[in-house]
Amino acid sequence: MGTLDTIKGRTSYRGAYKDAGVPREDLITIMEAGLAAPSGCNKQTTSLIAVDDPALLEKLRNVIQSKLADAPAMICILTQAIPAYGDTCFHVQDYSAAIQNMLLAAVELGYQSCWVEGQVTGADAIGRKMADILGVPADTELVCFLPIGIAADALKYVTKKPFGERAWFNGFRTGA
Amino acid sequence: MGTLDTIKGRTSYRGAYKDAGVPREDLITIMEAGLAAPSGCNKQTTSLIAVDDPALLEKLRNVIQSKLADAPAMICILTQAIPAYGDTCFHVQDYSAAIQNMLLAAVELGYQSCWVEGQVTGADAIGRKMADILGVPADTELVCFLPIGIAADALKYVTKKPFGERAWFNGFRTGA
Repeated sequence: MGTLDTIKGRTSYRGAYKDAGVPREDLITIMEAGLAAPSGCNKQTTSLIAVDDPALLEKLRNVIQSKLADAPAMICILTQAIPAYGDTCFHVQDYSAAIQNMLLAAVELGYQSCWVEGQVTGADAIGRKMADILGVPADTELVCFLPIGIAADALKYVTKKPFGERAWFNGFRTGA
Repeated sequence: MGTLDTIKGRTSYRGAYKDAGVPREDLITIMEAGLAAPSGCNKQTTSLIAVDDPALLEKLRNVIQSKLADAPAMICILTQAIPAYGDTCFHVQDYSAAIQNMLLAAVELGYQSCWVEGQVTGADAIGRKMADILGVPADTELVCFLPIGIAADALKYVTKKPFGERAWFNGFRTGA
């Protein structure tokens, strides 16, 4: 698929997934896409764990407690706040770019996914519970997971503001 | 181009640009790609200003003071820290996903670009100086610009850690 079509076709999928598993080679392709994203001063602060072991997925679902985790595979996103430009860390930018690449790669390969971060890093510390299950050390934070699978339900698209309310030429809210 | 090829082919371009201008329709396509990115709870915290007016580009270059600004067009990224999930803001994630989409769309259309953020948000407050030139109000931050143009020099790719040092299956640093 062309890049622009993939970008426009991607949506946050929250429906059910088909039982079909995700081949390792596809998970690798998706993770390679994530690692191909740029990172501030090339610090490469993002790392990834793909989970396709059914028993391990079940353990993770028990702590996540959301139907968003009911996919045949998931990719967990890990980050370290490493200073890049002076004292400034760009680890949030780094993992966000990696996630966006992975969402697009998943769509390109025929899968659907959803950026699940708020439920992971919220007050319930679900990210740390997931990290403990996966053996992630304390100096590394698990901030997000991406369910990966083939959609069983129809895709839905959110309503967005018109282009002219968010994008302009040569000045703020101008069309010049 | 296929999405995976675009993702792998993208790099941070810091060379010279050809004199050729960037047609408005291409700048619109790139900005549409940015706005198609997801945002936390669909808050759409990112907005964009494309600059292709030569006099305005010159003013911006005078405050940026970097050859990274020497492109025939640039897209400035604006953000607002709007709470999305409880008190948590995802505006950094939002604009980062939008930027990544725009970098890919630019490559797809035959352009090169570079994510310039550290120099913009650093101690010199260049982002605010750029924002003032563009009429951006105080409640909105200009955090990044993307030069857009056709490369005159060869592309360079940074060296990255091997896949196995950043991505694993079913556990931290495991291949199971």
